[in-house]
Amino acid sequence: MTESAAAQADPLPSWNAGEVKQSILAFVQAVTNQSGPDYVPPPARIAVFDNDGTLWSEQPLYIQLAFALDRVKALAPQHPEWRTTQPFQAVLENDQKALGAAGVKGLIQLVVTTHAGMTTDEFERILEDWFASARHPRLNRPYTEMAFVPMVELLGYLRGNGFKTYIVSGGGIEFMRGIAEQMYGIPPEQVIGSSGKLQYEVRNGVPVIVRLPEIEYFDDKEAKPAAIQKFIGRRPIAAFGNSDGDLQMLQWTAAGGGRRLMVFVDHTDGKREVEYRVSPMGRFEVGLKEARERGWTVVSMKDDWRRIFAFE
Amino acid sequence: MTESAAAQADPLPSWNAGEVKQSILAFVQAVTNQSGPDYVPPPARIAVFDNDGTLWSEQPLYIQLAFALDRVKALAPQHPEWRTTQPFQAVLENDQKALGAAGVKGLIQLVVTTHAGMTTDEFERILEDWFASARHPRLNRPYTEMAFVPMVELLGYLRGNGFKTYIVSGGGIEFMRGIAEQMYGIPPEQVIGSSGKLQYEVRNGVPVIVRLPEIEYFDDKEAKPAAIQKFIGRRPIAAFGNSDGDLQMLQWTAAGGGRRLMVFVDHTDGKREVEYRVSPMGRFEVGLKEARERGWTVVSMKDDWRRIFAFE
Repeated sequence: MTESAAAQADPLPSWNAGEVKQSILAFVQAVTNQSGPDYVPPPARIAVFDNDGTLWSEQPLYIQLAFALDRVKALAPQHPEWRTTQPFQAVLENDQKALGAAGVKGLIQLVVTTHAGMTTDEFERILEDWFASARHPRLNRPYTEMAFVPMVELLGYLRGNGFKTYIVSGGGIEFMRGIAEQMYGIPPEQVIGSSGKLQYEVRNGVPVIVRLPEIEYFDDKEAKPAAIQKFIGRRPIAAFGNSDGDLQMLQWTAAGGGRRLMVFVDHTDGKREVEYRVSPMGRFEVGLKEARERGWTVVSMKDDWRRIFAFE
Repeated sequence: MTESAAAQADPLPSWNAGEVKQSILAFVQAVTNQSGPDYVPPPARIAVFDNDGTLWSEQPLYIQLAFALDRVKALAPQHPEWRTTQPFQAVLENDQKALGAAGVKGLIQLVVTTHAGMTTDEFERILEDWFASARHPRLNRPYTEMAFVPMVELLGYLRGNGFKTYIVSGGGIEFMRGIAEQMYGIPPEQVIGSSGKLQYEVRNGVPVIVRLPEIEYFDDKEAKPAAIQKFIGRRPIAAFGNSDGDLQMLQWTAAGGGRRLMVFVDHTDGKREVEYRVSPMGRFEVGLKEARERGWTVVSMKDDWRRIFAFE
């Protein structure tokens, strides 16, 4: 068989053969087999994916946070007060210690401030420009190349089998929508995330939607199943995450009737990506324990993925 | 031509020939014509529909309110205090005057109370039972037969032309999801509405999502474009409503670039349905004025619809 014929025969060529790959293939075969006991009709084939650390790299820091830090620098001339106000001062002076001291609260403040006070159309344009020019600090690649190739393959494989693929992430909903179609083939209406309040108004006769500096929804942990119910209104049959923040989403998926697939991505590859289970981006401890107890699928990036990034 | 061949040739057989029907047909032809100047690729063909008074009848009262009143009566034995507490007492005693005096605030209280305090799975079952047995007070038909046939035809016609059809309504999101697929062919993930807060929890080892007695989002007027942005993330190219509560949704749709279709349904038929522009369910005054000024499509139910209900 030629290499390209082998790739055609194997829907997941970037996944090494083994138990993990087999658990995914067997699940998809089971739920699409019309004469089998596990058949699921296409409209109910809902698969949900966390984004940061599951579909793309979240190291050394959330890509959305990199965007927020760049925005603080870009907006600083219009905000002289930031030179002496934390956590903005820390960003402008590249003061990691002061930024660390600001904690999660400080980071949220940075995100909320830099993502608000403009219309949704303006935000889309700013995002587009940023993604076109910003680079990953270590790998010096555009952030749009930070997707995990095996996961992109998996998304396509599921869609090819009648699944509707959704992102359900703690990341900002409009931030992710800016790249989800291009990177993952996921349209905006299938992206669910944290969101700020939006306000419709007519400005000089032109209807606009304005982003307010106020969090409406923080889509993590217990909030993920609730967001799935609100946005989708049906329970997924497959769920993919990489940290304890995704555990409730996997539990909710597992608790439905019929065959289910629950998958955690374990960051075990210190050479090609970063080896970690505990980082400022979250922990993968309780979820790992539950996955092992319940026989869920745990992907070892080092062992199960032939390739991680497209540029390797 | 036989009658069935004529029906095949005409995608909207329940619509009388005329300007209104023509405006819809011309719009769909224009945005689907690949070589024309108004072509819109399928993923951007988003059409949004109000529900109450646009897709189904809202007279003599919102169907969801009829459900809430029936729930008060069903739950009364477990709530002896309701016998002496308004607005519950008014419902139990069929006291229209006291119910009117409770106003919108009282009605919201009835809806919030009767829709909360259970899991989402329990609510779905209650809804299913109610729709199977409840009847419209005047027409003595199941509420699932209260859809406007021309609008159901229109939904199918749009989907057949690559549109994604959404409900964007002030009605409760999970209430509408209970019947949207069966009545309109609209899946749950394409239903947007008012919502109560949801909470994920594990009860005796079983993950559930609980409906809390607290409004999270009231999807009317200015809130509709904001909800469209949040749930869909793209601007519709066609919008359908029947009252001033839908005006902002039509304005937001109209303000996009390229060809657009904005339609109001005007309740002009006192014989087959109810003739009204002002009712406890809302007003159609500011919207009508703007529609006339801007040349939007206004459907006269009396003149433009050959048939209103399937049982006629």
